[in-house]
Amino acid sequence: MHRTVLLTILAAAAFAARAAAPPALMPMPLQLEAGAGALPIDQKFTVVATPPDARLENALNRLAARLSRQTGMAIARSKPAAGGRATLRVECKARGALYPTLGEDESYQLEITPDGAVLKAAIVDGALRGLETFVQLVVPGAGGFEAPAVTIDDRPRFAWRGFMLDVSRHWMPVDVVKRNLDAMAAVKLNVFHWHLSDDQGIRVESRRYPRLQQFGSGGHYYTQAEIRDVVAYARDRGIRVVPEFDVPGHTTAWFPAYPRLASGPGPFEIGGDFGIFNQVMDPSREETYIFLDGFFGEMATLFPDPYFHVGGDEVNGRAWSQSAHVQAFARLHRLKDTRHIQLYFSKRVRQILARHGKTMVGWDEILQPGLGASTVIQTWRGRASLAESVKQGYRGILSWGYYLDHLAPASYHYAIDPMGGDTADLTAAEAGHILGGEACMWNELASAETVDSRIWPRLAAIAERLWSAQDVTDVDSMYRRLEAVSRMLEWTGIQHRANYGPMLDRLSGNRFAPPVRVLADACEALGLGPRHVNHNTTETPLNRMVDAARPESESVRALEQAAARVAANPAADAIDMAVLRSQFSRWAANDREFQPLADVNPLLEELKPISKDLSAAGALGLRLLDLVAAGQTAPPDWLAAQDAELKRMLEPSADLRLAAVRPVKILLDRAAPAGK
Amino acid sequence: MHRTVLLTILAAAAFAARAAAPPALMPMPLQLEAGAGALPIDQKFTVVATPPDARLENALNRLAARLSRQTGMAIARSKPAAGGRATLRVECKARGALYPTLGEDESYQLEITPDGAVLKAAIVDGALRGLETFVQLVVPGAGGFEAPAVTIDDRPRFAWRGFMLDVSRHWMPVDVVKRNLDAMAAVKLNVFHWHLSDDQGIRVESRRYPRLQQFGSGGHYYTQAEIRDVVAYARDRGIRVVPEFDVPGHTTAWFPAYPRLASGPGPFEIGGDFGIFNQVMDPSREETYIFLDGFFGEMATLFPDPYFHVGGDEVNGRAWSQSAHVQAFARLHRLKDTRHIQLYFSKRVRQILARHGKTMVGWDEILQPGLGASTVIQTWRGRASLAESVKQGYRGILSWGYYLDHLAPASYHYAIDPMGGDTADLTAAEAGHILGGEACMWNELASAETVDSRIWPRLAAIAERLWSAQDVTDVDSMYRRLEAVSRMLEWTGIQHRANYGPMLDRLSGNRFAPPVRVLADACEALGLGPRHVNHNTTETPLNRMVDAARPESESVRALEQAAARVAANPAADAIDMAVLRSQFSRWAANDREFQPLADVNPLLEELKPISKDLSAAGALGLRLLDLVAAGQTAPPDWLAAQDAELKRMLEPSADLRLAAVRPVKILLDRAAPAGK
Repeated sequence: MHRTVLLTILAAAAFAARAAAPPALMPMPLQLEAGAGALPIDQKFTVVATPPDARLENALNRLAARLSRQTGMAIARSKPAAGGRATLRVECKARGALYPTLGEDESYQLEITPDGAVLKAAIVDGALRGLETFVQLVVPGAGGFEAPAVTIDDRPRFAWRGFMLDVSRHWMPVDVVKRNLDAMAAVKLNVFHWHLSDDQGIRVESRRYPRLQQFGSGGHYYTQAEIRDVVAYARDRGIRVVPEFDVPGHTTAWFPAYPRLASGPGPFEIGGDFGIFNQVMDPSREETYIFLDGFFGEMATLFPDPYFHVGGDEVNGRAWSQSAHVQAFARLHRLKDTRHIQLYFSKRVRQILARHGKTMVGWDEILQPGLGASTVIQTWRGRASLAESVKQGYRGILSWGYYLDHLAPASYHYAIDPMGGDTADLTAAEAGHILGGEACMWNELASAETVDSRIWPRLAAIAERLWSAQDVTDVDSMYRRLEAVSRMLEWTGIQHRANYGPMLDRLSGNRFAPPVRVLADACEALGLGPRHVNHNTTETPLNRMVDAARPESESVRALEQAAARVAANPAADAIDMAVLRSQFSRWAANDREFQPLADVNPLLEELKPISKDLSAAGALGLRLLDLVAAGQTAPPDWLAAQDAELKRMLEPSADLRLAAVRPVKILLDRAAPAGK
Repeated sequence: MHRTVLLTILAAAAFAARAAAPPALMPMPLQLEAGAGALPIDQKFTVVATPPDARLENALNRLAARLSRQTGMAIARSKPAAGGRATLRVECKARGALYPTLGEDESYQLEITPDGAVLKAAIVDGALRGLETFVQLVVPGAGGFEAPAVTIDDRPRFAWRGFMLDVSRHWMPVDVVKRNLDAMAAVKLNVFHWHLSDDQGIRVESRRYPRLQQFGSGGHYYTQAEIRDVVAYARDRGIRVVPEFDVPGHTTAWFPAYPRLASGPGPFEIGGDFGIFNQVMDPSREETYIFLDGFFGEMATLFPDPYFHVGGDEVNGRAWSQSAHVQAFARLHRLKDTRHIQLYFSKRVRQILARHGKTMVGWDEILQPGLGASTVIQTWRGRASLAESVKQGYRGILSWGYYLDHLAPASYHYAIDPMGGDTADLTAAEAGHILGGEACMWNELASAETVDSRIWPRLAAIAERLWSAQDVTDVDSMYRRLEAVSRMLEWTGIQHRANYGPMLDRLSGNRFAPPVRVLADACEALGLGPRHVNHNTTETPLNRMVDAARPESESVRALEQAAARVAANPAADAIDMAVLRSQFSRWAANDREFQPLADVNPLLEELKPISKDLSAAGALGLRLLDLVAAGQTAPPDWLAAQDAELKRMLEPSADLRLAAVRPVKILLDRAAPAGK
């Protein structure tokens, strides 16, 4: 949690001005018109809904529970007394399908007046979206908890707004999945892409091939009852569940149970490290397809969604090149290279899926002509690939730019539009084949303890990109709302803010060690890529500072804003100046207190250099504040030296980025003669 | 959570000195001898246990899960390779009873060397206690997570170490109960007293009398399957479950279903407010006893424990005085007053329980000669009552002094010994009848959201009182260990620290409002009594500052210690002085930032006066620091005026106590001429 010292001091100053900020909606609705007054939300809250519908009833029960948590008042699921008017009336024209369908009408209209609220939708799933908007509107107002009077007309921009969770690299128990479904529903995402198999484990119970989970899961898999339970849980929240079984690559975990599925000789064991494994399925043996027909057939009945993801990514072809029988098979079928062998494989898989009533979804690498027009390509390599997919007549989903595990800032993801860059100039027909996007969370470096904080709140920004209008792009507005929504999401049960303190206290030996907290608040965690994934295995402890630290420091962001204001006009805001001075002083003093802790605690040892840098940045910040306050500039050679030093400090250390450098850099630029 | 600004600054200063503090064990073992070196705890951890036992196996699985959470490393439940030595070897001489029994041998011996650990116990329940000690020893050390070499010989002082949870006044779902059982086990408590009925609801499913839950629970009750599940959950942790069905008073919730159980005429409804209700069961009608025989008989099979609590408290006798037929009955049986009528009732209940194989437990008020020697009296009125109970030949349990809902400091509870005051001079035989004690959590003013923070960590101090030797009374040591154990308890899943931030952010409208946090850290919540319970009902929202604030401010305690050091020797500790000055400045400035927030947020309105006082206390603190630093004293009339002002500030406001006054008062006393 960013219950930070630094934010304390900073926000304290800036706070009064924001006291009456409007409720933070995310995603932003298509149309919103503010009214006068507000609807009180208290224990007299009542709600009615038509038509009678089990999913809607469940949703209203959840609404009461959520309002209870969010307001701290016990709000029961109550109907108004006979003849009385409900606080909220929900009206659906029709129920819609029990299980959500791609492209269904998710629109809703919400009108709130001081006397009551009415939510109208074409079908239940639209009402579910509207209920989430209603809940986000409930905040403390002039009369206690209330929802401001407002008229909203809303519908999504894209039909496929997904989130992929890798449960193979690190095991994610059912409750992790469920709480993420709750948070997904809160930001109107509607596809849960469940990455159920990879080199490090196959996570589903097969009754037809029980050796799969016996030898391929290390004991960590979902039973079929649990799968059904999760699918129903998602369905109740208007979320489709698309399973992924990644073939023919990323299949190491299948081979201990069924070594003959592999192209090369065994023995095999479940993958422990990460990356692209050479060993992949054997496309040349008919038994492979018989097996996949059996397995996919079983899974096809378990997952009701018509879309079925078969991966297809990162096949390097080495196992095929080295296999005499695969090579002989390729010659026979005139498959001239790895790509064509994979195309053969993909076509066979597509036929299998079609027989089981499923439409194939796969990653970029399956993209080849001849897969059948219904195929959906999920793009992780770039918008050029997405453009190519729809030009070939397939439908496409964008995931490039939405990889949460890279731990990029929310603003980075937010700026990436499925209809931008290489997809900006498609024909209308081609553009119509872009279904939407999917954020992905690959879990090489996240455990059940840390994963929520790697997903949230940044996923909310991507959800807005996929739901809201294309011109909703104001980053400041996004962050302002994201900070509120991040807190509101806690009432869904998601744990993204909950573990920060306990993890830092653990690093410090079961105590609150302020220098560790100050350092953590000033740092940001590096994700897959800059954090050297290849040095890690599934056994690597995820209990370091980088695992506790957040991808983005809320508190440093606030300091950057203060520094920018000071740089623009040093005389204007004494409070900003004081805030910066106070925080820089804290940083400057921190290393002196941190080092003795690290001397006796090897978990802190790796942080010694970055702690030293933090204090140096703080000291430099103080000096720059003096310069800026005095309206002075500094000698160019000194500035250049400091600039180089800040650049060096921004290099990764202990898999962390010293975010604290950024506000200092703003002041440094201001102190340059040209900066005036 | 006390992730406080103030503690940040303070502890930062004091921290380095404590960096290598010994592991915080609570309760303190009977004998402990430190060895040389430490046993590394990492993913190679293995454990074996004899004899084979299902409860022990479950405990070892929990141990692995707990170590995983506590270290942030995935530690599987593994046995050593053939011929290899286990990290931890657990040896029980015998299994002991499957269900824990009063007075069983809970002793254990734990020896840890750098090469391995051995835990020996007479029975499984002793091993369970020892495993909790082992887990508490695992902290980051010089070589990563490790358990220091140590030899421990330990056993409890009292056989009955209980915790009572009221689930009637506010409903507590099963997961609240389970996580409290986990935390109880962590501090070696062994009796869960489940207060299942009261005026505001009867919380158990009766199959014989289903109208009870239909009309007496408002829909909130445990099914019999849930009860069995909780009993098994507790049993696995070496905890007995003693159910309480409070009769003949506190029975309002029974009457809507069965009005003829009442002494007076209806109509009846479930209690909504709190206190002593006049209406109680009718002791004069034979049907009452027939009903209780049926109901207690059903409950007797549901709860395996031989002890069965029937309440008996707070019968004011008004309903009996006003009832002609009760009066006629009393005359017939020569029952001269309310006390004798209740004695008659108690005897009948005891007979009923005896027929179902249960021993009666009741509150003080049932204490009368003639109840049968096996009866256990639970004392809430004082140690005199406990002495009287054992002198009359009954067995006794002390709960007076252990009422957690009063929100007294841990040090208050810690100072109360079951063998102190009126029980200090009992004969050995009488003293032997004192079974132990029970902390009680009555939930008029706590919800499922807030209850954990009202119980923990203070209950750990009471657990130590009941387990450890009578001479373990050092309050400073207790608090030092309690602060660490409080954090360690989080890994059991208890939520006592988790809600502080979210509740304060909620009060502030889904954002981090530093002035609200600073004020919350400086305040302490008032409990039952000082918080005017009679103005509350079961519907009163529990979402105010008092509900978020902690019973004891960790951060103010640290400031008090600093102030005491400064007062003792102003020249000695420049860091203490700086810490106090920094915090007093923050307080002094806080109200200016707080008031604009409160102007637009009615949830904060009630806090305006206490916020003003906080800033005044801060300003006074700054002035006193100057005086003390200069070695000056202040004029007596000024001192007297300030003293009066601080006294006024200590009066409750918004059901809060301004803890921040205490360190200022220490400095004020120092500034008095006599204080030098």
